[in-house]
Amino acid sequence: MRDRKAATREHLLICAQQLVASAGFSGLQMQQLANHAGVATGTLYRYFPAKEQLAAEVFKRATRIEVAQVAQALTVSAAAPAQIAHALNVFAQRALRAPTLAWALIAEPVEAAVDQQRLQFRQQYAELFATSIQRGIDNQQLPAQNAQLSSTAIVGAIAEALIGPLAQVSRHTEANTPQPSTTVVDDIVQFCLRGLLAAPYSTATTHRLIQENADD
Amino acid sequence: MRDRKAATREHLLICAQQLVASAGFSGLQMQQLANHAGVATGTLYRYFPAKEQLAAEVFKRATRIEVAQVAQALTVSAAAPAQIAHALNVFAQRALRAPTLAWALIAEPVEAAVDQQRLQFRQQYAELFATSIQRGIDNQQLPAQNAQLSSTAIVGAIAEALIGPLAQVSRHTEANTPQPSTTVVDDIVQFCLRGLLAAPYSTATTHRLIQENADD
Repeated sequence: MRDRKAATREHLLICAQQLVASAGFSGLQMQQLANHAGVATGTLYRYFPAKEQLAAEVFKRATRIEVAQVAQALTVSAAAPAQIAHALNVFAQRALRAPTLAWALIAEPVEAAVDQQRLQFRQQYAELFATSIQRGIDNQQLPAQNAQLSSTAIVGAIAEALIGPLAQVSRHTEANTPQPSTTVVDDIVQFCLRGLLAAPYSTATTHRLIQENADD
Repeated sequence: MRDRKAATREHLLICAQQLVASAGFSGLQMQQLANHAGVATGTLYRYFPAKEQLAAEVFKRATRIEVAQVAQALTVSAAAPAQIAHALNVFAQRALRAPTLAWALIAEPVEAAVDQQRLQFRQQYAELFATSIQRGIDNQQLPAQNAQLSSTAIVGAIAEALIGPLAQVSRHTEANTPQPSTTVVDDIVQFCLRGLLAAPYSTATTHRLIQENADD
């Protein structure tokens, strides 16, 4: 009995993710999911009393897979800059290969419960990158910097930079899907690497730039 | 009559923004707002039938002011890197001076209607920075790069990097507010400037880094 319940729950979540992957969270409607999963609407509501809760669960499961891929990419035996380049590339390429799902996970306007999950997962990504950045600093493969800040900056940079391209790619029908733009991915990876790797400006230089003619 | 209606609407929006500035969007409750504004709850609902709509309006008004500040900062007569450094500094300093409001605008889990506004305003920020970056490229003050991509990357980087510090600062009571951390702001500005300014890696170098031992 407990097994059957777990199996039904799993089936419902897989079907829900299929709907999100094809039309985003706005395409996840309870009636439509019941039809797609071949269950009565009442059954669906017994498993997931609120759509918000179902959406948060779909988000969590789908994002956990992406976080694991990034974690895996950061374990390649290479210096920190190459590990990070590789992980950013994996993240971006995977997103562009499943653009509607990626757009739903990264940027789609959603209920607060899903936003809450987004905040938590962004922090998980940042912690993974921060560990790699800190190791790079310790091994003198990266210049001294605030590893935590740099890691959140690259997580924000890659997510925000992908939003436009994802929206563009996911608007095309499957038959007509353009190839994931290598240029976009390269540009994102390069921006992040420059941010991490270039010789840091001194505080004095930064202040001079900030203040330059700021009183005009 | 029309004037009085407009004045009441304005009064309600100002009171609503005060609630958001002190406790975030989760602190914006219809009953509490009616009390704070000194109107009957029924009156409030006549002006704003749904909380989601009210929240989206508060978001729009508050963010419009921040966008105008960034636009203004980008007009200082200086080379593009200094303009951008100045604008990023203005954005971050203003956020850290009103941390609860800034956290609400940038990161708080909210209704989908507010998320929608967030997407649009992020695009407005990106367009402002893109114009400045493109001018910098044209004037050879910045290396050749995809101005649109770099601009979304810095918007994402500064927003994401501020989330942690904002949450930390806004947890303190007003009497006990720590000074906005200059270090955090410097680190953010420096990361973004490095991303924009450092000599870009060749595509070949980027590919080499991405692939290095990636098949282990």
